[in-house]
Amino acid sequence: MKIYDVSLTLQSAMTTYDGEPGPTVTPIKAIDKGDAANVSLYSFGSHTGTHIDAPVHFIPAAPGVDTIMPEVLIGPATLLDLSSISEAITAADLQGAELPPDAARVLLKTRNSRYWDDVSGEFHRDFVYLAPDACRWLVDRGVRLVGIDYLSIEQFASPDHATHLTLLGAGVVIIEGLDLRAVHAGQYMLVALPLKIKDGDGSPSRVVLIDDWE
Amino acid sequence: MKIYDVSLTLQSAMTTYDGEPGPTVTPIKAIDKGDAANVSLYSFGSHTGTHIDAPVHFIPAAPGVDTIMPEVLIGPATLLDLSSISEAITAADLQGAELPPDAARVLLKTRNSRYWDDVSGEFHRDFVYLAPDACRWLVDRGVRLVGIDYLSIEQFASPDHATHLTLLGAGVVIIEGLDLRAVHAGQYMLVALPLKIKDGDGSPSRVVLIDDWE
Repeated sequence: MKIYDVSLTLQSAMTTYDGEPGPTVTPIKAIDKGDAANVSLYSFGSHTGTHIDAPVHFIPAAPGVDTIMPEVLIGPATLLDLSSISEAITAADLQGAELPPDAARVLLKTRNSRYWDDVSGEFHRDFVYLAPDACRWLVDRGVRLVGIDYLSIEQFASPDHATHLTLLGAGVVIIEGLDLRAVHAGQYMLVALPLKIKDGDGSPSRVVLIDDWE
Repeated sequence: MKIYDVSLTLQSAMTTYDGEPGPTVTPIKAIDKGDAANVSLYSFGSHTGTHIDAPVHFIPAAPGVDTIMPEVLIGPATLLDLSSISEAITAADLQGAELPPDAARVLLKTRNSRYWDDVSGEFHRDFVYLAPDACRWLVDRGVRLVGIDYLSIEQFASPDHATHLTLLGAGVVIIEGLDLRAVHAGQYMLVALPLKIKDGDGSPSRVVLIDDWE
């Protein structure tokens, strides 16, 4: 079995969504100060790096990230390469893609993945996003998880947040911030594990794709 | 396939190792304050809850948690039930357990798991631990990952840290803080994913055991 790590490294210099706080690491114990071990205090925003959105991210009093079922987070996934799309992924684009009829998890590789080559930390606002009609199309098909390769799945400065509301309102798990540069279109086993943060609106997550599972 | 989530929930009231800081959640954006979404700032110690130790936790300038290979973190694991042991798990105990000769990942269920029934947040110092001779036995057998069901795998206030140093020095991955109350001895597929924190000395991790994989 071959494992692809499609997670961003959490570090102080990384790109965050439009000014949200990036990771900090503060030593609590340090061997070079005479402590027995190195121990740190970490802090970061709930939507830093590769991360999962909980329903309560956009829907008041909705479930937190700790309630997302592992059965949805682990299982077969289809990676679509939509790198030729310049702005919005529409229902028509998905209709034309090679998605198996029973696909439960869909990962969208777009031109966004190239942004990870930019190590300046600049946040790009003109990223490719999933249009609301494409969200409805996925919900109607019974898709339970969708992932994309930038820090939001929704058009920047969307007036109505229809992308997030359509997906989260239907219980579809959203993964954002995937680094899909090294993977090609096809079928994989997805393992996407957020921290189990009580009532959390999101969580940085480690995400891997596995080829030749078993 | 059946998935068992053996991770502790990260929350302010949880037990931490001997006074280390527990999780905090601070709102950055809030729908009820007029923001479009709920977004939080999280902070916690690097060894909070269910977590993985990196070599640099005890060995200066050793590799961080971001370098631990997914190929070690994902794969078949043997869960041993050693609940009858009262203090130290020794090499003799492991010799007498039913460990397959090629076991690469070993999880130790002990009486410690019962501590998770105690919701007071008290840290118990008299937990069952892995004795240094048992660590050498595991290293000699080629075991690559070992997990235990309390917040340290080493005797509390160990004078020489031989348990951590033997395991981490040999490149064995250590998982601490597993909640093994609901799982029985046997073979599982283990998936243990820490956050990919650059040079991190450890990371809270989501850990699941899978039965009837594929």
